[in-house]
Amino acid sequence: MFKRIHHINFVVRDLEHAVAQYENLTGVQFEYIEEHPTRLVKTARIKLSEVWLVLVQPMDMDSVPGRVLEQQGEGFFLISYMVDDIVAAIAAIKTHGGKMIDDKPRKGISNWYVADLDTSSSFGVMTQICQEIDE
Amino acid sequence: MFKRIHHINFVVRDLEHAVAQYENLTGVQFEYIEEHPTRLVKTARIKLSEVWLVLVQPMDMDSVPGRVLEQQGEGFFLISYMVDDIVAAIAAIKTHGGKMIDDKPRKGISNWYVADLDTSSSFGVMTQICQEIDE
Repeated sequence: MFKRIHHINFVVRDLEHAVAQYENLTGVQFEYIEEHPTRLVKTARIKLSEVWLVLVQPMDMDSVPGRVLEQQGEGFFLISYMVDDIVAAIAAIKTHGGKMIDDKPRKGISNWYVADLDTSSSFGVMTQICQEIDE
Repeated sequence: MFKRIHHINFVVRDLEHAVAQYENLTGVQFEYIEEHPTRLVKTARIKLSEVWLVLVQPMDMDSVPGRVLEQQGEGFFLISYMVDDIVAAIAAIKTHGGKMIDDKPRKGISNWYVADLDTSSSFGVMTQICQEIDE
């Protein structure tokens, strides 16, 4: 069911600084730098072969990534696995005793529909499933 | 230079439990479960499309993953990017002002040769470069 990693998010304090540092050291250029006012974040993302790397800067500390930044500092935020059918995957995870934070898919950035697992079901790792759905 | 993600490591307290939980929820089976006495860890790994997912259980808390587990609990440990030439990549990172923990490649699991960046050069994320080298 989890065929591949779709994206990995890191939370950063200063997006411009992180992007400049990453581009300088790695020789790769971020493709999209976008604000997402509804999620209270700014993001930069790049597709490294088949996996999106996403840097997230909270614009308001009273948000999920804001609280992660406050509690843990900069670093890993979440890993998101691609599934073919997110509604079926949510049901399957629950059938197998897994606990979801999101019982229904919610809209992420781009055409990504996502649902978060409870970390008790994923040995402490913020884990998500994702399906790309074009309108 | 950083073309794709080679592997992602998570540190876990109980490898057997984490493997069973992951396999149960995701429907994927880990391919290798190995002890690495020189690194004082047990690992389980699976290749999800092109990226290796590695679970690491410290066998001794007086080790790098042991200290991460103690300080942060279970969760993300490191992200490792594939490079074509690890010696050249270390030199390039340093030329661009990056700080390495490992100035020379060290042998990881399998045929992986790795070198860690200092987290000050990677916005707090434990970051590594990796080249597969067959003997």
